[in-house]
Amino acid sequence: MIRVSILGASGYSGGELIRLLTNRPNIKLQHLTSESSGGEDIAALHPSLRGRVRRRFENLDVKKISRDSDVVFSCYPAAVGVKPIVQFLKAGLKVIDLSADFRLPTAHLYKTWYKVTHPAPGFIAKAVYGLPEYFRAEIRQASLIANPGCYATATLLAVLPLLKHRLIETDSVIVDAKSGVSGAGKKVTSQYMYCEANENLQAYAVAVHRHQPEIEQVIKKVTRLSARVTFVPHLVPMNRGILSVIYATLKKSMNKRDLRAVFLEAATGEPFVRLLPEGELPQTKNVLNTNYCDIGIAQDVRMKRVIVLSAIDNLVKGAAGQALQNMNLCLRRPETEGLL
Amino acid sequence: MIRVSILGASGYSGGELIRLLTNRPNIKLQHLTSESSGGEDIAALHPSLRGRVRRRFENLDVKKISRDSDVVFSCYPAAVGVKPIVQFLKAGLKVIDLSADFRLPTAHLYKTWYKVTHPAPGFIAKAVYGLPEYFRAEIRQASLIANPGCYATATLLAVLPLLKHRLIETDSVIVDAKSGVSGAGKKVTSQYMYCEANENLQAYAVAVHRHQPEIEQVIKKVTRLSARVTFVPHLVPMNRGILSVIYATLKKSMNKRDLRAVFLEAATGEPFVRLLPEGELPQTKNVLNTNYCDIGIAQDVRMKRVIVLSAIDNLVKGAAGQALQNMNLCLRRPETEGLL
Amino acid sequence: MIRVSILGASGYSGGELIRLLTNRPNIKLQHLTSESSGGEDIAALHPSLRGRVRRRFENLDVKKISRDSDVVFSCYPAAVGVKPIVQFLKAGLKVIDLSADFRLPTAHLYKTWYKVTHPAPGFIAKAVYGLPEYFRAEIRQASLIANPGCYATATLLAVLPLLKHRLIETDSVIVDAKSGVSGAGKKVTSQYMYCEANENLQAYAVAVHRHQPEIEQVIKKVTRLSARVTFVPHLVPMNRGILSVIYATLKKSMNKRDLRAVFLEAATGEPFVRLLPEGELPQTKNVLNTNYCDIGIAQDVRMKRVIVLSAIDNLVKGAAGQALQNMNLCLRRPETEGLL
Amino acid sequence: MIRVSILGASGYSGGELIRLLTNRPNIKLQHLTSESSGGEDIAALHPSLRGRVRRRFENLDVKKISRDSDVVFSCYPAAVGVKPIVQFLKAGLKVIDLSADFRLPTAHLYKTWYKVTHPAPGFIAKAVYGLPEYFRAEIRQASLIANPGCYATATLLAVLPLLKHRLIETDSVIVDAKSGVSGAGKKVTSQYMYCEANENLQAYAVAVHRHQPEIEQVIKKVTRLSARVTFVPHLVPMNRGILSVIYATLKKSMNKRDLRAVFLEAATGEPFVRLLPEGELPQTKNVLNTNYCDIGIAQDVRMKRVIVLSAIDNLVKGAAGQALQNMNLCLRRPETEGLL
Repeated sequence: MIRVSILGASGYSGGELIRLLTNRPNIKLQHLTSESSGGEDIAALHPSLRGRVRRRFENLDVKKISRDSDVVFSCYPAAVGVKPIVQFLKAGLKVIDLSADFRLPTAHLYKTWYKVTHPAPGFIAKAVYGLPEYFRAEIRQASLIANPGCYATATLLAVLPLLKHRLIETDSVIVDAKSGVSGAGKKVTSQYMYCEANENLQAYAVAVHRHQPEIEQVIKKVTRLSARVTFVPHLVPMNRGILSVIYATLKKSMNKRDLRAVFLEAATGEPFVRLLPEGELPQTKNVLNTNYCDIGIAQDVRMKRVIVLSAIDNLVKGAAGQALQNMNLCLRRPETEGLL
Repeated sequence: MIRVSILGASGYSGGELIRLLTNRPNIKLQHLTSESSGGEDIAALHPSLRGRVRRRFENLDVKKISRDSDVVFSCYPAAVGVKPIVQFLKAGLKVIDLSADFRLPTAHLYKTWYKVTHPAPGFIAKAVYGLPEYFRAEIRQASLIANPGCYATATLLAVLPLLKHRLIETDSVIVDAKSGVSGAGKKVTSQYMYCEANENLQAYAVAVHRHQPEIEQVIKKVTRLSARVTFVPHLVPMNRGILSVIYATLKKSMNKRDLRAVFLEAATGEPFVRLLPEGELPQTKNVLNTNYCDIGIAQDVRMKRVIVLSAIDNLVKGAAGQALQNMNLCLRRPETEGLL
Repeated sequence: MIRVSILGASGYSGGELIRLLTNRPNIKLQHLTSESSGGEDIAALHPSLRGRVRRRFENLDVKKISRDSDVVFSCYPAAVGVKPIVQFLKAGLKVIDLSADFRLPTAHLYKTWYKVTHPAPGFIAKAVYGLPEYFRAEIRQASLIANPGCYATATLLAVLPLLKHRLIETDSVIVDAKSGVSGAGKKVTSQYMYCEANENLQAYAVAVHRHQPEIEQVIKKVTRLSARVTFVPHLVPMNRGILSVIYATLKKSMNKRDLRAVFLEAATGEPFVRLLPEGELPQTKNVLNTNYCDIGIAQDVRMKRVIVLSAIDNLVKGAAGQALQNMNLCLRRPETEGLL
Repeated sequence: MIRVSILGASGYSGGELIRLLTNRPNIKLQHLTSESSGGEDIAALHPSLRGRVRRRFENLDVKKISRDSDVVFSCYPAAVGVKPIVQFLKAGLKVIDLSADFRLPTAHLYKTWYKVTHPAPGFIAKAVYGLPEYFRAEIRQASLIANPGCYATATLLAVLPLLKHRLIETDSVIVDAKSGVSGAGKKVTSQYMYCEANENLQAYAVAVHRHQPEIEQVIKKVTRLSARVTFVPHLVPMNRGILSVIYATLKKSMNKRDLRAVFLEAATGEPFVRLLPEGELPQTKNVLNTNYCDIGIAQDVRMKRVIVLSAIDNLVKGAAGQALQNMNLCLRRPETEGLL
């Protein structure tokens, strides 16, 4: 029996985690905390779970959670979870952090992008980036896993095969990414009101989104390349789903088959990466409520330009599902358990 | 009184044209044809017009239309309208063609992209491309106007200011364009069924869409530059609206102000181009049911990459509204009449 | 030139009013107030109006508005507008109030349903209920017009023909009404967040909605009948549109033709009521952005049950459009001016 | 190991069945037939199943299926599946029919509503109506189960508690039901095109929908009452979900608690019926992708009118999920297996 607690479980990622975990027979949900909703019935905030989860959100009690849990998921917003996480680590728990607190490699970079001083810079180096397709071995050994950002997940799985093989110009990468509205979380602001987001499409945070440095740093870690990536996210009128479209310039022309072989190799053995048949393109609906990342490839041969498209569910492979995949790995469970 | 007839008026563009024209006191709607719905009540196919338009679709009668009309709009699909259009031109009418038949400069290019032999190649050279912001003088003199494609309109208004001033590398242009579903027209196919298109996002026709050569040819006509453009369209779950995001590499670094000046100059005096205030980005909802094109600018200065974003309503500035703007011009009416 | 001012013009109804009024050549927009956004550019809050309206929201200045206006529209929330409205009336202006403050016939009923003491009970009797189809003569003479609620408009136009002719049991009326989300206004609350309202359907305020007494009171005024109506509103995942479905029991069986004749009579001469052809049913999309109310009729003859369906755009015939229709009437302008 | 085959598995219900069954370890999917797509890769028609289901649709081979299966689900349209179903029954298989072929009690009624002569009237009486909450014992013994219609399921679970206890006037029942678009199936018709169904709401088949007699007949079977029900379905712009709102007149006034007790009793022990806490109302989003039916109650005490609201996922409790629940019952498996 795996004893699990979740911090900040009242948001969308938290709800998705609870939903996925209640499906599994070998999981014992111990403590579910919420800063804003301590004491409230979980079914009141996640009404789809009524009848399946009969308990209340608790206030954070580090001692109790340390005693009762093997693994802790933190869905707290930036900076909030760092202190308790450090305590859980010291108590010997495994921690999977869904926030951005341990994704960037230095406290300086963190401060630049998140506008806050990192509360435990000494622990940054202990964190493993939880993208199993590239850090599986490290994740298996890790105590602290930085669960990747949703955009970063979709983008990295699409672009890393090209960069690993040094097939593209490092500074040519443009990422035009599109997300459903749940990517913005549950915060109540006018921009995400139904009538403002419905029947509307917009880009935001053009070339200044926080997943841009995350993507660049992971590229560096995996490939030793200092790629600079132009990242442009969009808000799409749908609840869930990310489509990431990557444009890059090939160093040398490649034929379809050779290009495809690169992605085939990257997908081989990966339980959650689906390279689509030639001529097919990812659609977000095909990955909804799944942990899959669908990938398609195209070219504009005239300019040696390659176009890679990837689709994920931002709350599953982009958050809770990948977190579970990471838990499975670091607890030495079958990687796909509870995710198929 | 301007006597107007519309060919193929049962589709979305046709319906929008009727709606816009019934708002104008100096317009007399003469004949509205439909191949599929001849004899049917117009309100049956455009039920929002019930009570305002009391008449029936007619079968095409070139003689009658020639006699009764000053201007003809053709909303026929590719190749279908060419023959009658030639007859209307010979009869001295003004023709505004919303199809692609007269957008490309040669019959050969037309055949390559539309897979059909052009029925009247001799008339291609007589056509003026109906993008008023760049061909206003020619449109005023024209008898035959090729109304631009919806994606082409949004994209050209965003990219031409940069190319005209030779500010970007010609082969660096990438267009990531997104459209609401009405862009696909009224054809009944499984791909556009509600449950297939809703809560879904996908790219299609990656780097092989027919608006790609249209964009490239107009760039050539306006700037004498042989730019090759990678064009990737997407289907977004909303009825209307196009957001076109253009990525290009500046030849030399430019500061914000100088870059903005280029677009300010392009927008000056243009009644339907709105350069947004600094820091604001186009949203499709802000141009819905209007003839406006909203434009915003951003940069990723690290790679001298400029990002231009433009939004239009695909059925208005992208079709019927621009057609009316063109009619106003070639009939020497105030350009904005019936469009504000 | 009609000099118009609008109070509380930053919301959805206010935006719609501005949009409709800027289309009209004989209107002069004088003062647009906003409590929350005084001093801000109107285009910042209503970005679709950029380029057409170049001015700022003002704080309320009763003296200035009294001096500069012939007619004032108030879009303030309940109770807020009463005091200035009284001052405008005393200054001789026409006032059209889009709030509920003057819709109910007594201060007591107002207090019961709106939980606030009416600030000017003496003025309630002076107000005319602004449903032109039933109070046209009174509206023409009125200085103070209580613009009807959106649900009430759709429901009353559907049910009054039956009640006027004493065709149905008064206590048999059930109204199952459905509205797009803009009916809730611009207030930022979690219930109306995109991910909460999208892909969801719910009833709310079951049999306790404030439009229930409004409907009952207007029925009484028009027909002298004390009908008690069960009113159940729903929130539908779309921006705009109301479909109201009314169920009632006929006193005596009626054949189709006779039943239809009743509604035909009611629609005759009405510029904005469209009785649909037999067999057709209202769809909200057909009235979007129009001031029309579409009406359809059906029966379950087994139980002598009649079913009347009506559709309006909640922001046009349900708010701003009807307000303009009322202004046209009380200023003796053509009733449809600026609305077709 | 339960050996399962599915007829007509290319539609939405079929896809949902496959999805639910591939989640279960003790299920062996044997043959999946499709009339229209025999030979095609299942992942091509249900792309979300790519990687999980590696097989092709087959043409119907009754002999093979009889030999290889313990239970057959039929998702064929009306009348098509009757003949093979009879053969499977003769071969000793359990059959769960998701069509309407065995829902109505007589061939005559079937002909009246489905406009086709029943191909095997002698088998109608052998079928058990698959609403476990009311026919659990019979389902356990059944070989042929008529899986209920989606609207009928939501409506019956809401209205039967009142009728069983003789609390309401039998002819007072009005059902105002609303469904997402997937309820119409995968058929490609203009009415269900994205731009026609999106941002739109309409009623259809008012008081003449085929689920009306189904509801009335099941009421009779369960309660011996000849209730006549006015049933009005609506099409709502969302993919999935049904909200059924039932209006009825109480014979005698009841207080809240007593009324609630009736529904509490009906829900007690039912694994998939959730009576919501007092004051809460069903929302379709809370039952999406689940087999739950959520129920809420309200009253308009003035006219002794009770209002019961129920929500289900039309493809789960309204189709595939309930079919599985029925399979579990008739194969003596735990009723909730694979459904929580």
